[in-house]
Amino acid sequence: MSKKGLMERLDAGEVVIGDGGFVFALEKRGYVKAGPWTPEATVENPEAVRQLHRDFLRAGSDVMQTFTFYASDDKLQNRGNEAQSKYSGALINKKACDIARGVANEGDALVAGGISQTPTYLSGKGKEAVQKEFEKQLTVFLENKVDFMIAEYFEHVEEMTWAIESVKKSCPDMACVATMCIGPEGDMHGVSAGECAVKMAQAGADVIGINCHFDPDVTLAGIKKMKEGLEGAGFKKHLISQPLGFKTPDAKKQGFIDLPEFPFGLEPRIITRWDAHRYAREAYNLGVRFIGACCGFEPYHIRAMAEELAKERGRLPEGSKKHGMWGDGLRQHTKPWVRARARREYWENLQPSSGRPLSAALSTPDQWGVTQGDDILKQHSETTTNDELKSLFVKH
Amino acid sequence: MSKKGLMERLDAGEVVIGDGGFVFALEKRGYVKAGPWTPEATVENPEAVRQLHRDFLRAGSDVMQTFTFYASDDKLQNRGNEAQSKYSGALINKKACDIARGVANEGDALVAGGISQTPTYLSGKGKEAVQKEFEKQLTVFLENKVDFMIAEYFEHVEEMTWAIESVKKSCPDMACVATMCIGPEGDMHGVSAGECAVKMAQAGADVIGINCHFDPDVTLAGIKKMKEGLEGAGFKKHLISQPLGFKTPDAKKQGFIDLPEFPFGLEPRIITRWDAHRYAREAYNLGVRFIGACCGFEPYHIRAMAEELAKERGRLPEGSKKHGMWGDGLRQHTKPWVRARARREYWENLQPSSGRPLSAALSTPDQWGVTQGDDILKQHSETTTNDELKSLFVKH
Amino acid sequence: MSKKGLMERLDAGEVVIGDGGFVFALEKRGYVKAGPWTPEATVENPEAVRQLHRDFLRAGSDVMQTFTFYASDDKLQNRGNEAQSKYSGALINKKACDIARGVANEGDALVAGGISQTPTYLSGKGKEAVQKEFEKQLTVFLENKVDFMIAEYFEHVEEMTWAIESVKKSCPDMACVATMCIGPEGDMHGVSAGECAVKMAQAGADVIGINCHFDPDVTLAGIKKMKEGLEGAGFKKHLISQPLGFKTPDAKKQGFIDLPEFPFGLEPRIITRWDAHRYAREAYNLGVRFIGACCGFEPYHIRAMAEELAKERGRLPEGSKKHGMWGDGLRQHTKPWVRARARREYWENLQPSSGRPLSAALSTPDQWGVTQGDDILKQHSETTTNDELKSLFVKH
Amino acid sequence: MSKKGLMERLDAGEVVIGDGGFVFALEKRGYVKAGPWTPEATVENPEAVRQLHRDFLRAGSDVMQTFTFYASDDKLQNRGNEAQSKYSGALINKKACDIARGVANEGDALVAGGISQTPTYLSGKGKEAVQKEFEKQLTVFLENKVDFMIAEYFEHVEEMTWAIESVKKSCPDMACVATMCIGPEGDMHGVSAGECAVKMAQAGADVIGINCHFDPDVTLAGIKKMKEGLEGAGFKKHLISQPLGFKTPDAKKQGFIDLPEFPFGLEPRIITRWDAHRYAREAYNLGVRFIGACCGFEPYHIRAMAEELAKERGRLPEGSKKHGMWGDGLRQHTKPWVRARARREYWENLQPSSGRPLSAALSTPDQWGVTQGDDILKQHSETTTNDELKSLFVKH
Repeated sequence: MSKKGLMERLDAGEVVIGDGGFVFALEKRGYVKAGPWTPEATVENPEAVRQLHRDFLRAGSDVMQTFTFYASDDKLQNRGNEAQSKYSGALINKKACDIARGVANEGDALVAGGISQTPTYLSGKGKEAVQKEFEKQLTVFLENKVDFMIAEYFEHVEEMTWAIESVKKSCPDMACVATMCIGPEGDMHGVSAGECAVKMAQAGADVIGINCHFDPDVTLAGIKKMKEGLEGAGFKKHLISQPLGFKTPDAKKQGFIDLPEFPFGLEPRIITRWDAHRYAREAYNLGVRFIGACCGFEPYHIRAMAEELAKERGRLPEGSKKHGMWGDGLRQHTKPWVRARARREYWENLQPSSGRPLSAALSTPDQWGVTQGDDILKQHSETTTNDELKSLFVKH
Repeated sequence: MSKKGLMERLDAGEVVIGDGGFVFALEKRGYVKAGPWTPEATVENPEAVRQLHRDFLRAGSDVMQTFTFYASDDKLQNRGNEAQSKYSGALINKKACDIARGVANEGDALVAGGISQTPTYLSGKGKEAVQKEFEKQLTVFLENKVDFMIAEYFEHVEEMTWAIESVKKSCPDMACVATMCIGPEGDMHGVSAGECAVKMAQAGADVIGINCHFDPDVTLAGIKKMKEGLEGAGFKKHLISQPLGFKTPDAKKQGFIDLPEFPFGLEPRIITRWDAHRYAREAYNLGVRFIGACCGFEPYHIRAMAEELAKERGRLPEGSKKHGMWGDGLRQHTKPWVRARARREYWENLQPSSGRPLSAALSTPDQWGVTQGDDILKQHSETTTNDELKSLFVKH
Repeated sequence: MSKKGLMERLDAGEVVIGDGGFVFALEKRGYVKAGPWTPEATVENPEAVRQLHRDFLRAGSDVMQTFTFYASDDKLQNRGNEAQSKYSGALINKKACDIARGVANEGDALVAGGISQTPTYLSGKGKEAVQKEFEKQLTVFLENKVDFMIAEYFEHVEEMTWAIESVKKSCPDMACVATMCIGPEGDMHGVSAGECAVKMAQAGADVIGINCHFDPDVTLAGIKKMKEGLEGAGFKKHLISQPLGFKTPDAKKQGFIDLPEFPFGLEPRIITRWDAHRYAREAYNLGVRFIGACCGFEPYHIRAMAEELAKERGRLPEGSKKHGMWGDGLRQHTKPWVRARARREYWENLQPSSGRPLSAALSTPDQWGVTQGDDILKQHSETTTNDELKSLFVKH
Repeated sequence: MSKKGLMERLDAGEVVIGDGGFVFALEKRGYVKAGPWTPEATVENPEAVRQLHRDFLRAGSDVMQTFTFYASDDKLQNRGNEAQSKYSGALINKKACDIARGVANEGDALVAGGISQTPTYLSGKGKEAVQKEFEKQLTVFLENKVDFMIAEYFEHVEEMTWAIESVKKSCPDMACVATMCIGPEGDMHGVSAGECAVKMAQAGADVIGINCHFDPDVTLAGIKKMKEGLEGAGFKKHLISQPLGFKTPDAKKQGFIDLPEFPFGLEPRIITRWDAHRYAREAYNLGVRFIGACCGFEPYHIRAMAEELAKERGRLPEGSKKHGMWGDGLRQHTKPWVRARARREYWENLQPSSGRPLSAALSTPDQWGVTQGDDILKQHSETTTNDELKSLFVKH
């Protein structure tokens, strides 16, 4: 008996809950290298990738995204990365499909293949070269029969539409979900969020939204603009949100990458499970029905989202067996003052302290103002030299 | 060819790196319930426990602690907990040994059994009843041939010494490591940290120190007092530190349990990998050689500790293959302003922002001032009722 | 030999520096009551008012504003205020003129009469009634020969234009400066900042800008919008800024009145002299030439503004004899580490700590969303009863 | 009819309220230079000094301290200070007496002469040279018949006792109040706070305590230690507290001078009137009866103290006519949400925000660890040269 597909679920008004952030979670678990952030762990440590998939499935995820972020061949050999030469992009992508499918079939989850922005685009090599990168991945996803595709993490709507085109061409029978990593201010070339959404719809995307780069609040503000843009242009599309699990009220156009804490000092910004509750509710109220997550979301955040929407979805995740909603499990705590916290109003109103009296609340983000089209963004396959680094230490 | 034992390693001046926090990590991954915090996951989800062990081994841990925290029979049936009736403490402890041994043998790690404070003590039932709880666990550890024992997480030195006695009696050939969950102010009954250490030494502990309840700074301040106490009394003992991975400059006597953020709003207090570097160095400088960790320490924190002490230990952890020390992996990042962060002085000096302008830096901890001897701390096996809860909501 | 008038100075490109905030400074000195904020101190404690004028003159102020804020008859008898019945508005206004003129003539300063928004408007009594209040004050200003008029602190552009009309009619030979207490979002009835400025120009204002309610950053953002509005409509007007000396990045439409700290907990928000330096420079760069200040600016803040613009103005204030620019006076400090702070870069880059680890950085402002037109804003002359208060304690 | 003297009042159990901080208030008003902080304003701008005295008298001060802080001849010619050569210390001190007496006689206040620590001591010139400086001032105070003497702001108990001796010798009929500027850690040479108090009592001080350098909380913690020291040694002395009006939880041994914000960035640390209420109550509860204040306390802080202790003192200050206790004056505010703040519990529980999301809560103080006895502290009469400064910019 086959599972209901993504569009069937969304068209029926169901809430589809995505999974959390693989690159950040696996970096912390020890299997992904910060910097390149490429997914050769599917070959090197498949059991670690599988376990994370299982953690998310148990937490309530309806979608297993293949761990293929930044898995285009050009990225796998950028700046000294040896993943391409050691394993090949084809193998890394294939293994990701195997692992995701295996865990998805342990439950009712769908498998989504994924492609994302390329160094080729950033280096200004043009549409044909970029789409060639996508197509190599798409061939693998087609052969391995993923349930649908997500083209995600695009900063420039131009490359985004090229990606959607490639998906529609290579995998014509699959639904195409498309998310840009932008905020309410729009893409890196100055295209507004509303216009981006319209271009994505025109290119053929079935589900449209935003992933990564910003926290739930900022992401939903951007999706609101997309929604208004789509409605203004007469499009009726499902919406998706996959925000960061880090607070970013101070990030400007390019999001958390510009924050001085990226990527090794973001801990104080990690959202709580209560923030995840609020996010799920607000996304739902905005009309988003593919409610997912990105970097920083751990399994317990996904569980909180599934618990918040338990009534709408008609079920609790399996992981809730080991979790009491709104702190109910604290009834079993030995200390009476901790048992006194077993109630919703306590956690809903808590503003958690940082324990860091020498830290400020907000940061001044880097804003070098360079984007695709700038020479300094051209990538190369050799590793960055010390001299190249030194020239960067003197801030532009 | 057998591995070198704990005392051999310490006596030879080696640095032994412990593992991180299981209950908090597995709660976030979805396999442990906050509140009771008991380890029936060894029966229910052994693969999840095994994976976390593997993550720590890969990060550099030399010790695999059996996941037997709060696994005494009385705790497994406290306040509505069904773990004891469903699985029995004996099985939970045995499975923990199997899993730990399996992963330890994938590397050069030792297996440590663990016992911790009991509801029986808190309820004032006396020495015999308490030691009976310990002995049930110790029988399992003996049969399963763990390499040494840790008696950890004791708030009262009285119960601590009873635990050490039980270890020495039941497992006379094993080294006995003993850690209290106290800070520089001493135990809950007003015994100073220095005196606690002396009593632990007198009871027969081989390695003495502190775990849980406080951040690395406060924990090391407490161990400093223990060290002075031991030296003053003429004892020469190895030291161990296993602090929290949460900042707690504002916690008073009972530590992070009193903070209003415990246990579901601690995210902004999570330490960075750079805090873990600093902790490892400062523990080492204080003379601690069993340098471990407790709740909040994830595999990447352990990796940072192993990297900080790579020179002293003569090796890097396996996980460093996927990590560049001091941000070196950022050389491979596509954005130039992120590559500009590939240097030690950047991360060493960063005071990370919380992204939470509505939160304060510090909290006012609960300080109900009750401890063993107070009626309100007596435990029972029925779950906490709503009426009992309501009486707690009106703060004492 | 007569002084140059305001318009002469501005038309010649001079920078005119205003004075600071009287009601807040005199409340702290003990002569003004917070709540009503009315200026009967001109009758009751003239020497205290005079001294504050002198402090500002010495600090570099070119304008002595008569201390007539909220000195309309209706305000002087609002909600139990006895100032009107004891002294009369006419006397309070007249004495303010005497004091201001006396101090102005000790230097080269001009005297500005002032009128501000009325309870009559808030209570919805219509144009004629409102203008009658203004005209009673204007008669006094005319008789006492102030040099020019400032119509300031209007939240609704409708009342603002009525005030400008009254000034033009009653004092036809005087320059009319007009400032609203709004931010970039516009007035309380939803009129944009740009439109407000255009209506003010159409009503006949000679110098246009913003005072009170917001900090220098927000105020200048509002004036930028006014400037653009005026230019778009073809008006060429001088600009004035008179912001708060309190940081208000979190205040919404109605400014600092909505902040929970208003008016008795604003201390941590007080700007430093270095903030005042930066304000003066940024106002100048925006093209503002009447650079003044409002509540929270003390004499030393005005001195900092005059010092920042010393080159442009060709002179330092008299008060600089007792001040070394950028900390230069610290050369004379006995402690070497304080002498080490005698330099611009030290102070320019300091982010001052609050010493309040239990406080947050920002607040959630009250936003009751009521304005002129709402019944709850109707004023009465009896004092507020306890019952009326109680109904307010339950937040709307 | 003569006034009751200080000791009469204290012996009768009355609360004596001191005045606030002259050097900081007059620096902000424009009459004192930060760095030297010397009081030649008594000659140059007597009306400004007089007005501040009046502000404090009106706020409830029972004591008018002559504005003679740092008015020893050696200080008036230190590091380029020309006050001595232009006016002479004798004149500056005499004028201070005249002004203080004039205002004191407008009410029931007493006049207190004051001496403080000397550059001569810091430069290591010995007891005779130091006492010669004191005696020049004391001659003036005797001739001008101040009511009693305060020897205040001593960092070293050695110099403190020399000062007390000088007072007892030169002004044998006057009560001698003595305050050190230390915290609970004791003086700069390592003498504990308790021992300091005992030495002060042995030298003949009648009222003993602490002024300046620390906030009310830290100051009272220090006075508690003094009290215990005195009681332990069998002394029965009245206590005095004159703390800073700045929050200093992070200042170490040498107090606010070490904070990076000293002296031009302390604004976010300024205490609120509610902090002043709490201070007065806690000082009273500790048994302090001469409850005064130092740098940072403005007239409204003194008023708050007098209001807090109105019942104990049997009267409200004159300034309360223009102040409603606990925000009562807000009943007269036009905005309903501000009227809703007219109640004690609102203000008592407010944790005021800083409006500074880029600032931290606490600072890392300078701790150069130099004190009397170090060469670098030797003073000279020439101004500090640029070369001398540069050598300091490279932190020791």
